[in-house]
Amino acid sequence: MTTRDTTGERVTVNGSEYAVPTRPTVVITVDGGATSYFSAALDAGVMPNLRDMLAGGAFMGEGLSEMPSFTNPNNMSIVTGVPPAVHGVPGNYARTEDGAERLLNEPSALRADSIHSAFQAAGHPTLAVTAKDKLRRLLAHGGVPSVSSERAHELRLEAYGIDSITDLVGRPNPHIYDWEASAYAMDIGLAVHRAAGPLTLVYVSLTDYVQHHQPPGSALASRFYQAFDVRLGHYLAEGFAVGITADHGMNAKHHADGSPRVIYLEDELADLDPKVHVVLPITDPYTAHHGSLGSFAWVYVTADKRAAAMERLAEVPGITEVYGGQESAVMFELPRNLVGDIAVTSDRGTVVGRSRVFHDQAALPSGLRSHGGRYEQVVPVIVSEPLAPGYLATVQGRPLRNRYIHDLLLNGLRGPCHVGVGR
Amino acid sequence: MTTRDTTGERVTVNGSEYAVPTRPTVVITVDGGATSYFSAALDAGVMPNLRDMLAGGAFMGEGLSEMPSFTNPNNMSIVTGVPPAVHGVPGNYARTEDGAERLLNEPSALRADSIHSAFQAAGHPTLAVTAKDKLRRLLAHGGVPSVSSERAHELRLEAYGIDSITDLVGRPNPHIYDWEASAYAMDIGLAVHRAAGPLTLVYVSLTDYVQHHQPPGSALASRFYQAFDVRLGHYLAEGFAVGITADHGMNAKHHADGSPRVIYLEDELADLDPKVHVVLPITDPYTAHHGSLGSFAWVYVTADKRAAAMERLAEVPGITEVYGGQESAVMFELPRNLVGDIAVTSDRGTVVGRSRVFHDQAALPSGLRSHGGRYEQVVPVIVSEPLAPGYLATVQGRPLRNRYIHDLLLNGLRGPCHVGVGR
Repeated sequence: MTTRDTTGERVTVNGSEYAVPTRPTVVITVDGGATSYFSAALDAGVMPNLRDMLAGGAFMGEGLSEMPSFTNPNNMSIVTGVPPAVHGVPGNYARTEDGAERLLNEPSALRADSIHSAFQAAGHPTLAVTAKDKLRRLLAHGGVPSVSSERAHELRLEAYGIDSITDLVGRPNPHIYDWEASAYAMDIGLAVHRAAGPLTLVYVSLTDYVQHHQPPGSALASRFYQAFDVRLGHYLAEGFAVGITADHGMNAKHHADGSPRVIYLEDELADLDPKVHVVLPITDPYTAHHGSLGSFAWVYVTADKRAAAMERLAEVPGITEVYGGQESAVMFELPRNLVGDIAVTSDRGTVVGRSRVFHDQAALPSGLRSHGGRYEQVVPVIVSEPLAPGYLATVQGRPLRNRYIHDLLLNGLRGPCHVGVGR
Repeated sequence: MTTRDTTGERVTVNGSEYAVPTRPTVVITVDGGATSYFSAALDAGVMPNLRDMLAGGAFMGEGLSEMPSFTNPNNMSIVTGVPPAVHGVPGNYARTEDGAERLLNEPSALRADSIHSAFQAAGHPTLAVTAKDKLRRLLAHGGVPSVSSERAHELRLEAYGIDSITDLVGRPNPHIYDWEASAYAMDIGLAVHRAAGPLTLVYVSLTDYVQHHQPPGSALASRFYQAFDVRLGHYLAEGFAVGITADHGMNAKHHADGSPRVIYLEDELADLDPKVHVVLPITDPYTAHHGSLGSFAWVYVTADKRAAAMERLAEVPGITEVYGGQESAVMFELPRNLVGDIAVTSDRGTVVGRSRVFHDQAALPSGLRSHGGRYEQVVPVIVSEPLAPGYLATVQGRPLRNRYIHDLLLNGLRGPCHVGVGR
């Protein structure tokens, strides 16, 4: 394998410059990967590669994800480097201006270029691998070769002349509700790099099946992070610079008996406004994860009922913040055309839903763990090597965001260059 | 008056570049100046200069202040361009690492250079005027000539050979609890510029006496914003480029009978932990404004009671967010050495206090209006002219912060130059 000399080359995306690395570089987004999972796995001794990496001076900090703390907005922020207000994807699901509700999985939902599409256009080979197929076409936006482990058995990678992903990996792909779906995604990235690379910039987005089901330190979580760590070792041995972050954290959202702790927003407001309608932006095809119950919701009400509805919602125990739609766009850096009349967040242990009737009470998840609120906004930000002193000085003590991971990894390891992070 | 040719000159402060303007430039921070005050005054027709400015294409957006939404952290962010995590001032008041509690009015509390001190050091004359004397020495940090309207009768401005501020303005300075204290601060800035200028960069920080006492659209608020608008006209006529923002918003925090809606945090936790201690970072010398009651508090508890205290606080109606101290440092971009064990925020209509006994119940403010929480985080960001198209493109749809006002004003009106805003 030969790598083209890219010394000094830069690519500009969404107003920021990124240095083209002289060696392969990967960012791995651990879906639902709250810092507590990493800490517990490190304490349990199942992540020797991460441990050694940190002992060698790798950078590990905590930063913020986007709000609402859901998968699609955060993956799009991580690959574009800009907030939802700019890239246009404020949830997994939204009510659009035409009044229709839809999953935000279409490339047309994305208004900003990804860093990967700009690298690809500049002739630097890229790849996006996602465990969840729902992200594949968003990540492919702008011509990025993209594949999912969920559909690895039926997808090809024409850009790299690969007809069978599963043959390349050497084993069948796990089901999306299998704990190994994430490890498989990591394996795809490395297999493509070895077979058709070298690749310049790889993105691997995992799935939070495990995090939705088990807390930090549990047996399943240990197995997951151990498998993660083995693959991390593979990437490092292959010479990759590695960045790790999460799209959101994860918290238990249930009563002691395991039943979910839900506030049904339409039920709370039905007598005030029979036309009340709630949109849950966590909604996605993976209902086994969360039953569409998360800690953020949009409420639509009749205009003259809005003030009263906001007042009433603010009084409900477990609801934390209540904003008007445009106020929430400022507060959370969201696109103004995709906000509801009212934004509602709920607390560390509580989710919000539509109505008791809408959510089939017999099918509610037991031991629900979910996300979407402020309390799932804190995520790890890890880079496999020490940051250059000049860069570190600008990062230390400044706000860290998961959307800066490519800036840290591409600009932070290479000495003096412009840094926009942390303003 | 002659102005030195500064075309193309730049000053670097805290990692950001600011173009030296070719004409005088002023930023005015309207203490407690929620957008609703400006909107109501514009609707009432008492701000013709602002109206004409906006009709002429001036930029007006809404952005976020720092949390907690108090005066000192936000004024320091506005003059340094960086968050409290970097400049070191997370409140008006704090418990420091030595266990002492103190007002954060000392220049030694400030860890970052102000834009003004860097301009002054580069030979470009600056001035900081504050209505509240508590900010004067912080603003003077690094050699910025600074004066307050509160103590204008006894302060001199040696840098500009001015022995009597009140003589220069031509009338006595109002008391700090007089609604005209802010207008007087604006008058000082212009008087010094005319007598000893031209000045390159002026900062004028007002006081929120009016906002603490009267809602948007009230008679007093109208008078205040009318007086503000007259001075705005004076600055514009003098050739100033003008930026306007606020350190925080303001909301009513009282019951229908006028009594404050307070959660007494020490009382809530006393039976759980008799050693509980609450620190209120709104605390400042201007107790008539707020009685030290705002929507943010630090709670100190015995270590093994922390989890239980956090759980209990999260259940109290009116409390919105409850974080561990280090978690709150990540969440709110605060300096890690000045956070408490627990951070607590309260909702749009509620404040937090220490205990019923601590806050003299007979002396509680009636009709309390206050700030400190998320709901007072949205503030206007106004620049007196259209932003250059290249700059505007990077600002539109990006998160706006009050701490970017100098970037907008110094870099945004002058065509293509680097923009770090909004990452």
